Amino acid sequence: MILINGEQRDTLEITDRGLHYGDGLFETIEIVQGQPVFLTQHLARLKIGCQVLRIPYPKEALLLDEIHQICHSVVHGVVKLMLTRGSGGRGYRQPEPIQATRLVFLYPFPKYPVNYKNEGIKALFCTSRLGLNPVLAGIKHNNRLEQVLARAEWQDEFQEGLMLNLNEHVIEGTMTNLFVVKDGVLYTPEIILSGVKGVLREIILEIAKINNIPFKVTSLTQDFILLADELFVTNSVIGIWPIKSLAGKSYALGSWTQKIIHYLAEYKISDQGTAC
Amino acid sequence: MILINGEQRDTLEITDRGLHYGDGLFETIEIVQGQPVFLTQHLARLKIGCQVLRIPYPKEALLLDEIHQICHSVVHGVVKLMLTRGSGGRGYRQPEPIQATRLVFLYPFPKYPVNYKNEGIKALFCTSRLGLNPVLAGIKHNNRLEQVLARAEWQDEFQEGLMLNLNEHVIEGTMTNLFVVKDGVLYTPEIILSGVKGVLREIILEIAKINNIPFKVTSLTQDFILLADELFVTNSVIGIWPIKSLAGKSYALGSWTQKIIHYLAEYKISDQGTAC
Repeated sequence: MILINGEQRDTLEITDRGLHYGDGLFETIEIVQGQPVFLTQHLARLKIGCQVLRIPYPKEALLLDEIHQICHSVVHGVVKLMLTRGSGGRGYRQPEPIQATRLVFLYPFPKYPVNYKNEGIKALFCTSRLGLNPVLAGIKHNNRLEQVLARAEWQDEFQEGLMLNLNEHVIEGTMTNLFVVKDGVLYTPEIILSGVKGVLREIILEIAKINNIPFKVTSLTQDFILLADELFVTNSVIGIWPIKSLAGKSYALGSWTQKIIHYLAEYKISDQGTAC
Repeated sequence: MILINGEQRDTLEITDRGLHYGDGLFETIEIVQGQPVFLTQHLARLKIGCQVLRIPYPKEALLLDEIHQICHSVVHGVVKLMLTRGSGGRGYRQPEPIQATRLVFLYPFPKYPVNYKNEGIKALFCTSRLGLNPVLAGIKHNNRLEQVLARAEWQDEFQEGLMLNLNEHVIEGTMTNLFVVKDGVLYTPEIILSGVKGVLREIILEIAKINNIPFKVTSLTQDFILLADELFVTNSVIGIWPIKSLAGKSYALGSWTQKIIHYLAEYKISDQGTAC
């Protein structure tokens, strides 16, 4: 089921700028028992994206209502909420006023083997590099060719690929953020020139703060990551996947990762009150 | 009129990766008396884009036939030819096999005042920067947020904005390539880390070669451009627009620009034989 500006449809106006320029933003939200998980955080990031791209943020009641229509009877699924700059304008020049297009897609929850969570995944370093653009870094916009090219580097032999940017800093996975544990400190790459600030990344940083886990958000090299004690990747749909092998090296599903998985489960329960 | 995979339609499958990730390429082609101008060159660039993004290049006869259907009775117009990776796949992972979507749009020829060509335009330096990504530089892909953001910096007081990249090199206009004449040498920025290799840019470089005009393709600074003798921008639809003012400085529509405008007119006539 798909809602476009509140109406059930399965096609889009061909003039939409989402198609022509990737001129839009999206959020991918887990649905559990009819409730969108971490909805407040997803909408907050969408709002920041709207400020950066200067797409008018719709009335939140409208978004909440459309998400509710889509997901209220869903036991376990995924909602993709997309917002484009709509149709019109002349070439790159935006229309005035901007009439954003709201798209709400419902997908079944992806069936990942349970051992990805319990035992960990195999990852590789992608050859494709993330470009540099400080304005677009952080937000979840629709210009995603870099991720598409990186994801085409493997088939089923790995579950995620880590991407370096042009400065040779490790930034994130193609669809996840990366966390590294080394000597009792939790590290995650800074998202300044490249990458997406995942909703779960922000939550895990918050969890670290609440629970006095020492953490650093900084630039990380490939060498540093290969010397890590523990590695895991995160996104709002998969949660936390420990990395059990990377570039031929093996990693334990260590106590820090287990602790954070535990804290996240607690946080998720306590956060349920904020859903729509 | 719009053809999608050969059929007249005005809506697109909502699952198309062009919408979700800007996962596609496009060409904007002038139509004169039913004939697409510089079609061979446009299709050659599209093919390179397909190689870079690994989107299967459709059978050329099919593209030619669909363009012909759209433009055979058009006196003066613009065809936008778009190719996306089609629908399907799982997240960023591409479908297998890839069934590219072909889109052919017909637009009226934009009505620009004739003095843009004859007297020149006013340009500014945009504040927005082009990011860096050597893999995506050169091709005309659908990830165009940088251009959308730059074009939003002015309304009607200018006709084009020149964009620097993160390295502070001047690369191009939001919808054009840039040429600079200084001491009898023609310069254009190298397109290595950022920017699009415009079809007309390549043709003007060819014209320079044929006519023994000294030229250099190199990195250019803002200071160098401000000291230029003559400046002009190019794209396949507008042709050549001299710049008459930039950042408060005035420029003459000089003899080199006039010479190149003349050579281009000749080249266009001689090239007509290659159209479909």
